[in-house]
Amino acid sequence: MKTERIARILRAMREAGLEQILVSSPASVYYCAGVWIQPGERMLALHITARGELTLYANRLFALSPIPGMKLVEFDDADDCVDVLSSGILPGVLGIDKTWPSQFTIRLMEKRPDVKPALGSGPVDGCRMLKDAEELDLMRASSRINDAATRDAIAALALGMSERQAADAYAAAAAAHGAQGVSFPPLVCFGANCAEPHHGTSGDVIRAGDSVILDVGALYRSYCSDMTRTVFFGSVSDEQRRVYSVVLAANEAGRAAVRPGVPLRDIDRAARKVIEDAGYGKYFIHRTGHGIGLEVHEPADVGAACSLPAQPGMVFSVEPGIYLPGRFGVRVEDLVAVTDDGCETLNSLPRGLEVVG
Amino acid sequence: MKTERIARILRAMREAGLEQILVSSPASVYYCAGVWIQPGERMLALHITARGELTLYANRLFALSPIPGMKLVEFDDADDCVDVLSSGILPGVLGIDKTWPSQFTIRLMEKRPDVKPALGSGPVDGCRMLKDAEELDLMRASSRINDAATRDAIAALALGMSERQAADAYAAAAAAHGAQGVSFPPLVCFGANCAEPHHGTSGDVIRAGDSVILDVGALYRSYCSDMTRTVFFGSVSDEQRRVYSVVLAANEAGRAAVRPGVPLRDIDRAARKVIEDAGYGKYFIHRTGHGIGLEVHEPADVGAACSLPAQPGMVFSVEPGIYLPGRFGVRVEDLVAVTDDGCETLNSLPRGLEVVG
Repeated sequence: MKTERIARILRAMREAGLEQILVSSPASVYYCAGVWIQPGERMLALHITARGELTLYANRLFALSPIPGMKLVEFDDADDCVDVLSSGILPGVLGIDKTWPSQFTIRLMEKRPDVKPALGSGPVDGCRMLKDAEELDLMRASSRINDAATRDAIAALALGMSERQAADAYAAAAAAHGAQGVSFPPLVCFGANCAEPHHGTSGDVIRAGDSVILDVGALYRSYCSDMTRTVFFGSVSDEQRRVYSVVLAANEAGRAAVRPGVPLRDIDRAARKVIEDAGYGKYFIHRTGHGIGLEVHEPADVGAACSLPAQPGMVFSVEPGIYLPGRFGVRVEDLVAVTDDGCETLNSLPRGLEVVG
Repeated sequence: MKTERIARILRAMREAGLEQILVSSPASVYYCAGVWIQPGERMLALHITARGELTLYANRLFALSPIPGMKLVEFDDADDCVDVLSSGILPGVLGIDKTWPSQFTIRLMEKRPDVKPALGSGPVDGCRMLKDAEELDLMRASSRINDAATRDAIAALALGMSERQAADAYAAAAAAHGAQGVSFPPLVCFGANCAEPHHGTSGDVIRAGDSVILDVGALYRSYCSDMTRTVFFGSVSDEQRRVYSVVLAANEAGRAAVRPGVPLRDIDRAARKVIEDAGYGKYFIHRTGHGIGLEVHEPADVGAACSLPAQPGMVFSVEPGIYLPGRFGVRVEDLVAVTDDGCETLNSLPRGLEVVG
């Protein structure tokens, strides 16, 4: 059990007025218990009371070892798992993890009309948002692997290569550099595909003059990295060069705006302003960034609607882009960790304009 | 919209006494609407009323085209999506898909105290369990690809190869044979790893005398295949030979027991009896099979607790195994489709004992 993290969660529960919560997402259970369980269709729930009693309900199939500080209640496929859980729940409000499958919530409500379900992810999500020293070390290591694998994947770009082959080259390089896998399917786009917000890595082949977006991440000891580099294949036009310099300046302005107390929407604004001032505002069609950690997308959003102030320990992406439909696109993304007086950029792969191949 | 499927779902809703349901799982929405949407953390819901009104609530990000026969209600990230949905829900009981994230169910309940949530996956799950002709064709094609790719992966086994490399060889072969991907991460186990119920494909390297389990599936036009073959590397011992012949006989007995009206537990029994009679009963530690289709695990279970009778159109696995801890394991798995008078086995890769390498 992660004692310090649990203490922070209990404090957050008290602040939120929650006497009990059910933690169910694999990442949140891992955060609390140090064990990663993929329950599939089976029930998984960690019950935490404000008094600090922790009970993990898990299928016997997962063959868990005892976890100090935590009671383990196991059940079989033949058992009614909600019945087993139900007897451990206190009357009154129960905070429920946002992704817990509704079948369990509905059956628990039927069995326990004296229990009132409420949104209950806040305390754990809030703690997960502020990485501790151990987590920051793992996130740095994950991004170091990502830097090295991306460098290799860029070096491997060659005439006739498909987006899918480039994505495979990234994944192989990440594994070779010590990743346990990728944190999301590598996204590689060539040319006009770079400007399609929902393009997925395809069999399309690289051509001279293409912009090449590599939006990739590695997984290292359960922690995600996420970075985007855009390079040009064979040659670069004046317009591509201009757009690239605007996006790079937006990335730098976004990162430069990060310091404790600054609302995340101001970081979005700082990056967006550079692109708007250059006349490309309507081609920057997404938020500037997102939180990351055990999952590749975590709270909070670095977007226009987020008034939350940056706090030391937050890790999020800064990833402005310009997308010119039918032509090309550019995105430059780095992860930053908020420090006491600014931020640390977790990626060190150079950002200068690069023409390859 | 899939008109015939919707008609069957409406009939099932009437039988279950459900006036309205929310369909939310990507596979079930695809089954009804013909479009595959991965909502991630965003809300997705298809509202179906017993009168046949269908409304799909989806984020504008997914840029859906109009779907004939279905009203489309879109919302933005800035909208309160549950508010948008709430206004379309009728008072009274609302059947909710089993995996819908609880955050939506809880917020909907807060907004609409006149709506009573109930388990609501039954009608769609019941229809999906009985494959129509179009689905059966796609499942046959998916299993044909799986046969070919598994044959290639077995042929590629070589001294010094790791489980992970063999899994990659399978995935590459599946893609070469026309798969859109794998239906689950290929599971390859060597030697004693074969006997570990929760072993994941690892970096362990093949050795002479190892049993080799390949439990693999392809994805073809969204339909899953799933098959297991066990071969022996370099040599086979008398005991391995005996265990193999028992498992193969259990697989054959299980498939031979399949015909309409036979409870699924009797199919489990038929396979299990062969293994028990040979004295290995306590080493067959899981159910005999599971339903499969758009998802790799679907209702129903081919297990001791399932009294549901087999019906034409059901597709499920028959996958008995014997696992001798610390030594080796054998599993032989095929998919069968229930026909009017028995079953069709979807896999045609030979099952005879094979020593390779």
